[in-house]
Amino acid sequence: MAQTVVQISGHIIDSLILPKVLDLIISLGAQFEILDIQIGHRRSDRSHARIKVEASSPDLLDVVLAKIREHGALPEQVEEESLQLEAALLDGVFPERFYATTNLETWVRLEQQWIPVESIEMDCGIRIDASARKAQCVPMHRVKKGDLVVVGQRGVKVVPLERQQPGAPFEFMASPVSTEQPKGLLIREIAESMQRVRRDNGRILVVAGPGLVHTGASKYLAELIENGYVQVLFAGNGLAVHDMESDLYGTSLGVYVDQKIRAAEGHEHHLWTINRIRKAGGIRQAVEQGLIRKGIFYSCVKNDVEFVLAGSIRDDGPLPDVITDTLQAQDIMREKARGVSFALMIATTLHAIATGNLLPASVKTVCVDINPAVVTKLTDRGTFQALGLVTDVEPFLRELCSDLDLNVVCSS
Amino acid sequence: MAQTVVQISGHIIDSLILPKVLDLIISLGAQFEILDIQIGHRRSDRSHARIKVEASSPDLLDVVLAKIREHGALPEQVEEESLQLEAALLDGVFPERFYATTNLETWVRLEQQWIPVESIEMDCGIRIDASARKAQCVPMHRVKKGDLVVVGQRGVKVVPLERQQPGAPFEFMASPVSTEQPKGLLIREIAESMQRVRRDNGRILVVAGPGLVHTGASKYLAELIENGYVQVLFAGNGLAVHDMESDLYGTSLGVYVDQKIRAAEGHEHHLWTINRIRKAGGIRQAVEQGLIRKGIFYSCVKNDVEFVLAGSIRDDGPLPDVITDTLQAQDIMREKARGVSFALMIATTLHAIATGNLLPASVKTVCVDINPAVVTKLTDRGTFQALGLVTDVEPFLRELCSDLDLNVVCSS
Amino acid sequence: MAQTVVQISGHIIDSLILPKVLDLIISLGAQFEILDIQIGHRRSDRSHARIKVEASSPDLLDVVLAKIREHGALPEQVEEESLQLEAALLDGVFPERFYATTNLETWVRLEQQWIPVESIEMDCGIRIDASARKAQCVPMHRVKKGDLVVVGQRGVKVVPLERQQPGAPFEFMASPVSTEQPKGLLIREIAESMQRVRRDNGRILVVAGPGLVHTGASKYLAELIENGYVQVLFAGNGLAVHDMESDLYGTSLGVYVDQKIRAAEGHEHHLWTINRIRKAGGIRQAVEQGLIRKGIFYSCVKNDVEFVLAGSIRDDGPLPDVITDTLQAQDIMREKARGVSFALMIATTLHAIATGNLLPASVKTVCVDINPAVVTKLTDRGTFQALGLVTDVEPFLRELCSDLDLNVVCSS
Amino acid sequence: MAQTVVQISGHIIDSLILPKVLDLIISLGAQFEILDIQIGHRRSDRSHARIKVEASSPDLLDVVLAKIREHGALPEQVEEESLQLEAALLDGVFPERFYATTNLETWVRLEQQWIPVESIEMDCGIRIDASARKAQCVPMHRVKKGDLVVVGQRGVKVVPLERQQPGAPFEFMASPVSTEQPKGLLIREIAESMQRVRRDNGRILVVAGPGLVHTGASKYLAELIENGYVQVLFAGNGLAVHDMESDLYGTSLGVYVDQKIRAAEGHEHHLWTINRIRKAGGIRQAVEQGLIRKGIFYSCVKNDVEFVLAGSIRDDGPLPDVITDTLQAQDIMREKARGVSFALMIATTLHAIATGNLLPASVKTVCVDINPAVVTKLTDRGTFQALGLVTDVEPFLRELCSDLDLNVVCSS
Repeated sequence: MAQTVVQISGHIIDSLILPKVLDLIISLGAQFEILDIQIGHRRSDRSHARIKVEASSPDLLDVVLAKIREHGALPEQVEEESLQLEAALLDGVFPERFYATTNLETWVRLEQQWIPVESIEMDCGIRIDASARKAQCVPMHRVKKGDLVVVGQRGVKVVPLERQQPGAPFEFMASPVSTEQPKGLLIREIAESMQRVRRDNGRILVVAGPGLVHTGASKYLAELIENGYVQVLFAGNGLAVHDMESDLYGTSLGVYVDQKIRAAEGHEHHLWTINRIRKAGGIRQAVEQGLIRKGIFYSCVKNDVEFVLAGSIRDDGPLPDVITDTLQAQDIMREKARGVSFALMIATTLHAIATGNLLPASVKTVCVDINPAVVTKLTDRGTFQALGLVTDVEPFLRELCSDLDLNVVCSS
Repeated sequence: MAQTVVQISGHIIDSLILPKVLDLIISLGAQFEILDIQIGHRRSDRSHARIKVEASSPDLLDVVLAKIREHGALPEQVEEESLQLEAALLDGVFPERFYATTNLETWVRLEQQWIPVESIEMDCGIRIDASARKAQCVPMHRVKKGDLVVVGQRGVKVVPLERQQPGAPFEFMASPVSTEQPKGLLIREIAESMQRVRRDNGRILVVAGPGLVHTGASKYLAELIENGYVQVLFAGNGLAVHDMESDLYGTSLGVYVDQKIRAAEGHEHHLWTINRIRKAGGIRQAVEQGLIRKGIFYSCVKNDVEFVLAGSIRDDGPLPDVITDTLQAQDIMREKARGVSFALMIATTLHAIATGNLLPASVKTVCVDINPAVVTKLTDRGTFQALGLVTDVEPFLRELCSDLDLNVVCSS
Repeated sequence: MAQTVVQISGHIIDSLILPKVLDLIISLGAQFEILDIQIGHRRSDRSHARIKVEASSPDLLDVVLAKIREHGALPEQVEEESLQLEAALLDGVFPERFYATTNLETWVRLEQQWIPVESIEMDCGIRIDASARKAQCVPMHRVKKGDLVVVGQRGVKVVPLERQQPGAPFEFMASPVSTEQPKGLLIREIAESMQRVRRDNGRILVVAGPGLVHTGASKYLAELIENGYVQVLFAGNGLAVHDMESDLYGTSLGVYVDQKIRAAEGHEHHLWTINRIRKAGGIRQAVEQGLIRKGIFYSCVKNDVEFVLAGSIRDDGPLPDVITDTLQAQDIMREKARGVSFALMIATTLHAIATGNLLPASVKTVCVDINPAVVTKLTDRGTFQALGLVTDVEPFLRELCSDLDLNVVCSS
Repeated sequence: MAQTVVQISGHIIDSLILPKVLDLIISLGAQFEILDIQIGHRRSDRSHARIKVEASSPDLLDVVLAKIREHGALPEQVEEESLQLEAALLDGVFPERFYATTNLETWVRLEQQWIPVESIEMDCGIRIDASARKAQCVPMHRVKKGDLVVVGQRGVKVVPLERQQPGAPFEFMASPVSTEQPKGLLIREIAESMQRVRRDNGRILVVAGPGLVHTGASKYLAELIENGYVQVLFAGNGLAVHDMESDLYGTSLGVYVDQKIRAAEGHEHHLWTINRIRKAGGIRQAVEQGLIRKGIFYSCVKNDVEFVLAGSIRDDGPLPDVITDTLQAQDIMREKARGVSFALMIATTLHAIATGNLLPASVKTVCVDINPAVVTKLTDRGTFQALGLVTDVEPFLRELCSDLDLNVVCSS
């Protein structure tokens, strides 16, 4: 067990610096103990904390210390640290493991004194002119052979940004929804959450939009249902019609989904599907009469998974199962949402927001859509616990099924 | 061989009606012969055409006739057709195969006379009041048991929309980039195009952005390279750095891509990678020295695939291979683009537009991005031959490799 | 009156070349007469047309001829045209009015012979090597002093792209929704359409979402109503609540809209507004009781503008005026949409699509949203006559009011 | 001066609850003093704080207390508070000022005991069944005449969500970029920042993309320059060419911007502009020779505002002023960015990210674009201090000029 003590001071609480440092320690796999803390009583007062960091190995400790340094948490013995310098061997090439700058105010400890790094800018190195007692931020292509460059973290400190006015837009910026993440990690975490919920006999709610069928992803949702990963399904007329159109005619909005051949454009299949289900009396009846023989709603009926189809003014038909009164639909959704501990919202805005309105904040909520605006809307409307994942629905569900070890036969 | 003759009249050329009809006939798998055509000489004159449609079966002919009817192409014997009516058996349920309306002006032939359908609206049925000689558009939920409803296409005609003012924004609307398509079909077509190009010894150009590495898709691009599906690669500093960072450190921008574990945030790996390649003298040298042992650029070097790395003002470093002068980079891209017959642009705006500028319109160009704006920009800037595909890059490349029968081992 | 005869041949009908040429002639302000046309009877046959172009001045004629040339329509006397050449006076500078290339296959007429331009690429010039009888596409920075460069359009012809397979994705690409247009022009056209409709006593339908109030744009919509530019308004619970919250509390979703000061976050005002209107018995009653004294719905009540509030499952409350049964709401919208000749849809997806479903294609429809996906969805769902405008709602309405000469006092 | 003491306990530091509460107090215009704080030393320990809140009036104090209650900060005397109840007067209508629920776990104090509110859900009321000692969350439409409903905040407490695992995606959700804000407030704050900077003789950097000209916004940027609100301008070839094309030909990419008339499509004006400026020797020379007589770059030259045009591989021409070497361009941008204290980035991705890389975190940075992805990318790439504003560029600049009291004559 390696350990060291760091200190941190400034407006570390309302500038979120202390929470961020504690968060980093834990998320890198180390532990902390707050040895000592003095909190400023008023806005103008500064706070100060001493924190013991413990890690399972000296290497991990080094990683943690390096990271939290970027937020101003410095080892107590920082005043005794000396800067490590190394000469550049070639023009335009830094020494190995050179210190890579951030865009925050930075100081280096040269001969027992802290001197500021001039012209700070992110992603550069620090060049030291020892005789002039100067430190300068220098881009890689400007370093010259023989220049002394800072290596490692010792003897370097950064001053984290503090917020001047709470609530001011300049100061409190959140990192928004990004499309450039390795999504596999998130999908695996979602799969694990779903497994955990089911192990504890918890209920999973899926809320899904019709895009799921157009993009050929319905077989994955059916598989989730068949394997007990869905206890209740909220959707609208569209999802159900497209799903059953796909079974009856092989198309979704007139496009042959599975054979990947484009049919003529046209809404007949769509409307004829609605008409046939109306004639049968409803979805359950259509399954029981053998009219519908596979798909999302077939699986729901066969596995006694509850579904609620809520009406909207853009519905065609609608199916007899659709609850056209929106207040009544809300009430039924409310009731069916009881006891849900995980909600997965896929490719739907209206139903996602409506469901988000009904769920307690303690329900883990994941919202998947190719359009970042949907996730934004959900959190804007108060469902702040929602995790957004901006990706295509079909590959998302495919990977989720695979992470859950479900075999989806793709022939269909 | 089934055949029939249709006729069509109006401003069928400048309202795009005739081209659309011919297009439909062919794309549904039938053939046409224009028997007779009179073209209006001036804008105010109407045109008239008689077209023979031939299909391999009566069923296909029926499908074709139904579709082109929606654009105003009617069988010559339409005046002799009689409307098929059937009574609704239940309230709120139409007869099977009821005629589904469009939102275009529609007429039905009742007792040798054409009468207009009142209150036309899409996705409804047509109810006939024979005694009053009236036809009315009726939504599914409003039909009553016993109502006479039009079934099939016979005796129905629609009047296609004609443009009043050419160039007016109201009239000439394009169907924009959609995210709700079954993408598998398009990806298969891309794969087939690439196979065809390679069979003819054509050259394939790939233009790629760094998002490809972040999302874990580089192994697929490497596989395309290894299997001869890439003859030349255009990219920037970012793609190459992320690709080699991934080999040297297992991370991309500080995130462990393949093991799907998040590392600490930080740019060191990124900058250290650049520095080490600068020290080695360049990418080829780094591969030859055994520093780089897999990845996109490793595969390029090993397979003698040419690559051009063009500089941009947002580059860190950059790598020694980057051509920092943009004019010089353009000239080299220009030269390497010669003889290319297929261009695949993935997750990049700047390089896609720059390359689009250099390619003749005859080069088939596919642009893949999760952001629809990229595709829009490309076509806005004149590369109108580009096909846009709005999807996530990783699943796109995974499916493309699978359609090309490449086995990508996902262990890495 | 200047005039000339052009000819055009190839698959000019199903490749959309002829319609495009006719469209250009008219939209540039000239006239055409088709003198002669032979249409290929089968797909493999080529067509041929001779078209007389008439313009009010030789200058305009020149502009028209230059433009349609780019689509392959060439003057009959093209075989007698001679290329105009001029020498570059400086390195890297073309002669004035040099011919700017497209990326289409291009030929030049040199000494009575057509020779192809090598290495064609858009936005370059054409350099002629007369002795070698060669023409080469050359970028601006590569031209050398003394090089002979093509000037003007004479003696140049391009070969328009023809589609090989109808319906194939590579061939039939639409230009999608763009955010980089001068929107003022479109807004003026919308204003003129609205004026024209009102002059003819036509009905204008506005469909609006709640974003309109958040962004401070409601005063403009109120002004349109006050001035007779709205005959019927379709919206949901949200718009009405935000509008009246703004009157009762000065906030919209807890944000002070007009004073531009952020209030505490919170939904009380929103919910209290609903509650008070429920207590009053409805919107009309709230206006008559003096509770609501300005805003969109105040103006509707005062000016006897009909409104339909359709329910959705995400509604809070809702207001007593909301029709919670979606089928009933559709039926009422259907009825109120009768006789509408212009529909303006602002910042709403659900209501826009629902309304689009109900309107005949002959109703001019404009859809305004900051999110391009909304417009895409509308046209995807069949409302192909819709014109999309991707912009912020508040400045759109402000400019529309100004183009309609309405004075909106911004004090409120 | 009104004041009271609140207390708060739990994982209030690493769950961000304490910072959030302090932030709310200040941003609502009140003051705090931390009287007492005990911080848990390890992750499993809970913390506890007592905070004195002071406000200028009892009303303001009430507002503040109400807001911070939602985050778990309760008055010390909360145990003595008694719930205020009022009976509903009508079915479906709550009493005035009813307590509006959040979706967090909620308790009410009934007869000296805290009891939980059942079926909690946001935006509802709380109904008390005193005899059964039950509290239930009830939607507005379900309340019945005579039901006892909680009014005001007294006797109610909520339990804020705590994070279970730091760094876990479910727990640490940021509020992303929203398009539904009243932007006027933000624009006014930007204007005030710019005025403050100029009052202190600070330097303002504008980074702009060509979309600014297409959308007709260049006159506003020129006005900012003329009035001393721009000290340095970073852009690319595109902005300068479009700006000068607009002066020379009245078009931007072939569209007549100011007269709002669409010209024929075509790139000649664009290329001819480049060619003429190349002939003149550069932008300054073109202004001095009287070739360029208005616009952004005319104003730069006339007012000695420095500009840097950095090259990119998608440039046509380029203009002689463009620095085609990207490393050299970076170095010059680096130098010119010294001393800048405010950066305004408009309608550009490449230049915004490149500039963001060069600026210290202390430079206030505002990024304006109609595409939310641009802002996301900027903060993803490390420029976390950037404030994003998702709006149309033209109205943004128009309003900014108006807030700065600049008169822009729109005739041009």
